[in-house]
Amino acid sequence: MKFNFSKRVPQNDDDAVGSILKAAVDPKVISLAGGLPSPDLFPVKELKKAADEVFDNDGKTALQYGMAAGYEKLREQVAEMTRKRGIECSADDVVITTGTEQSIDLVGKLLVNPGDTVLVEKPTYLCTLDVLRSYGAKLVGVDMDEHGMRMDALKKALDEHPDAKLLYTIPNFQNPTGRTMPNARREEMEKMLAERNIVILEDDPYGKVRYSGKDQYPVKHFDHTGNVIYQSSFSKFLVPGLRLGWIVADPAFIKRLVPMKQSTDLHSDNLSQYVVSRYLAENDIQKHVDQICALYKKRAETMMKELDEKAPKGVTHSNPEGGMFLWVKAPESVNTVDLFKECIKHHVAFVPGAPFYPGKVTQGTFRLNFSNADSKTIKIAIDRLCDALNEFMKTTSK
Amino acid sequence: MKFNFSKRVPQNDDDAVGSILKAAVDPKVISLAGGLPSPDLFPVKELKKAADEVFDNDGKTALQYGMAAGYEKLREQVAEMTRKRGIECSADDVVITTGTEQSIDLVGKLLVNPGDTVLVEKPTYLCTLDVLRSYGAKLVGVDMDEHGMRMDALKKALDEHPDAKLLYTIPNFQNPTGRTMPNARREEMEKMLAERNIVILEDDPYGKVRYSGKDQYPVKHFDHTGNVIYQSSFSKFLVPGLRLGWIVADPAFIKRLVPMKQSTDLHSDNLSQYVVSRYLAENDIQKHVDQICALYKKRAETMMKELDEKAPKGVTHSNPEGGMFLWVKAPESVNTVDLFKECIKHHVAFVPGAPFYPGKVTQGTFRLNFSNADSKTIKIAIDRLCDALNEFMKTTSK
Repeated sequence: MKFNFSKRVPQNDDDAVGSILKAAVDPKVISLAGGLPSPDLFPVKELKKAADEVFDNDGKTALQYGMAAGYEKLREQVAEMTRKRGIECSADDVVITTGTEQSIDLVGKLLVNPGDTVLVEKPTYLCTLDVLRSYGAKLVGVDMDEHGMRMDALKKALDEHPDAKLLYTIPNFQNPTGRTMPNARREEMEKMLAERNIVILEDDPYGKVRYSGKDQYPVKHFDHTGNVIYQSSFSKFLVPGLRLGWIVADPAFIKRLVPMKQSTDLHSDNLSQYVVSRYLAENDIQKHVDQICALYKKRAETMMKELDEKAPKGVTHSNPEGGMFLWVKAPESVNTVDLFKECIKHHVAFVPGAPFYPGKVTQGTFRLNFSNADSKTIKIAIDRLCDALNEFMKTTSK
Repeated sequence: MKFNFSKRVPQNDDDAVGSILKAAVDPKVISLAGGLPSPDLFPVKELKKAADEVFDNDGKTALQYGMAAGYEKLREQVAEMTRKRGIECSADDVVITTGTEQSIDLVGKLLVNPGDTVLVEKPTYLCTLDVLRSYGAKLVGVDMDEHGMRMDALKKALDEHPDAKLLYTIPNFQNPTGRTMPNARREEMEKMLAERNIVILEDDPYGKVRYSGKDQYPVKHFDHTGNVIYQSSFSKFLVPGLRLGWIVADPAFIKRLVPMKQSTDLHSDNLSQYVVSRYLAENDIQKHVDQICALYKKRAETMMKELDEKAPKGVTHSNPEGGMFLWVKAPESVNTVDLFKECIKHHVAFVPGAPFYPGKVTQGTFRLNFSNADSKTIKIAIDRLCDALNEFMKTTSK
């Protein structure tokens, strides 16, 4: 059977990221490629206790079908957490999703017609690019600096694309760059987009995992018209295996989101919603987040120190205040896909910059993850990476 | 903010099914409207034991990100169950999904371009109609008789729509009619569609819940070209709250399905996959299914007996050999949306036939669920329903 796939499906066999992740699976390779949180701090015991209590007290309800918008008590808890971040909302404004990826997929499905222009940071989360492309979006990258999206570049993009439908941003510890937008820029961005009646999808999976600097308000905090759709998830500050995220948005958006969520997977895993709700009721989540921040701070600092000491001249990196990623810039003459192959020989892996770009790629870039390896392993990995980099840059500059 | 939703989103506010389910929520109303399995037989204790063991032995892995295709051990177990139903397959041919609804959504996204023709049974599962419409499908209903889709009607539909892309069928205890296709029809259907290079999506959520008659082979059993995509789920014979289903398909389809699943929600709930896998390893699932079948048989027989005794002349019903639904036919002069409002006054609810039809509605039809109320409650409900029917038919025939 030769399947006649829809236009949404990439028709080529080129799965660059898949091949990268496959190469990184070799047990001899230390992978700094993935985006996995550290399992060292998964609260297994506490979640087991919560699950036991759910089975004992709410077993039949938690195992039955639930509501498309999500378990009401969890929606209330999420609303409370969200209010603490500076966003006015109630449980009615919250929809529980099967993780951030689904949130992006639902927003794309609800808003993007084939050919619609969507603005994104350049570079940005590669899976978002895939999802938006599957809905036929025309992706326009907006330049960044060390403080996130540049407002002059945004203004220019808006002037060139007055019909833009949506802007996607990760304002905190961005994936892949680790950069954070300051409040002033967030407010300015929101003002520009609201004036033009363009929706902002604010993706904030890492926001709670800040280990230095000062919390900034979500873009949605500055939203007076309802044009900002805010999303986050439990993956990065609790556990990712339970696949639970959420969307907070204007009632007019929620009204269409709930039936679309229902026709996508009816509702998210009910048992997991009950378990997380009970966990949140019984545990001090901030204390848990503080532990994660302390661990990641140490790992990030180790990685940066090692890079500063060992990387060849001309190699720089971002300086994240939280999150899980470091963005490295080598000279533009370094093709990081080729560098990746060299690194695999040195038994270390990363993600080359190319797949994070919506269009033209800035050469010499790659992403490192520091959340999923301990400091000792990070030291060995950066040693190997810098050896490979040194050799590679010597060879290619000949 | 006035959102400019995509063409995929129904632009009207008419949510017939939503209003029905809302009316049915009144605690005074006995609802035969939903499609809920009986929680009386949820294996809460056994699932708790399985969950405890997962937390103790595999906690950090089960709570971490997993593979897009699903937990390998569960895929092996699903492959084994599927082989027992007469489908040759291995774990590599299986993808775990976040329930049947997501399976349908993924298949629609992968195959249906706006304007593509999709053949469906008339009537069929209403959520499938919503999903296919969201991808712009042109839905063509094929007539049924008491043994499912009629082959002469299918031939006619294929002659009229030679460009049809997909056929969606529920061959066992169909939703909403409860009807089952015999083997001969399944084989003939598969032959006709394979010759024309048209994909069949075989939806089999109820297949294991057969309480009379003889198991029929899945349509995929007769598939020699790879054109049948088979799907099922744990919702109807284990629990629905864990949101786990699966797709078994040709390698050429699986190859595109896995990245699309990944860009939809990365993967299904990992903890739930581990828990179900362990449950299946430790328990005799067939024994559990036998208990469900015995309970549903009793409930279905009670409902049919009550209807036969009390329903007005001219009212008939299907005679299902399994599943959860009974399809009732009153004279075509009975508008069952109006009848529904009358029934709510009598404190009983069902789903009127209209939303199950892809196009022209056969009047006088409605669906009853018999899995989620005990026999005593069913008797009271059918009493009320028949009272309402009697009054309604007297008034409308005046």
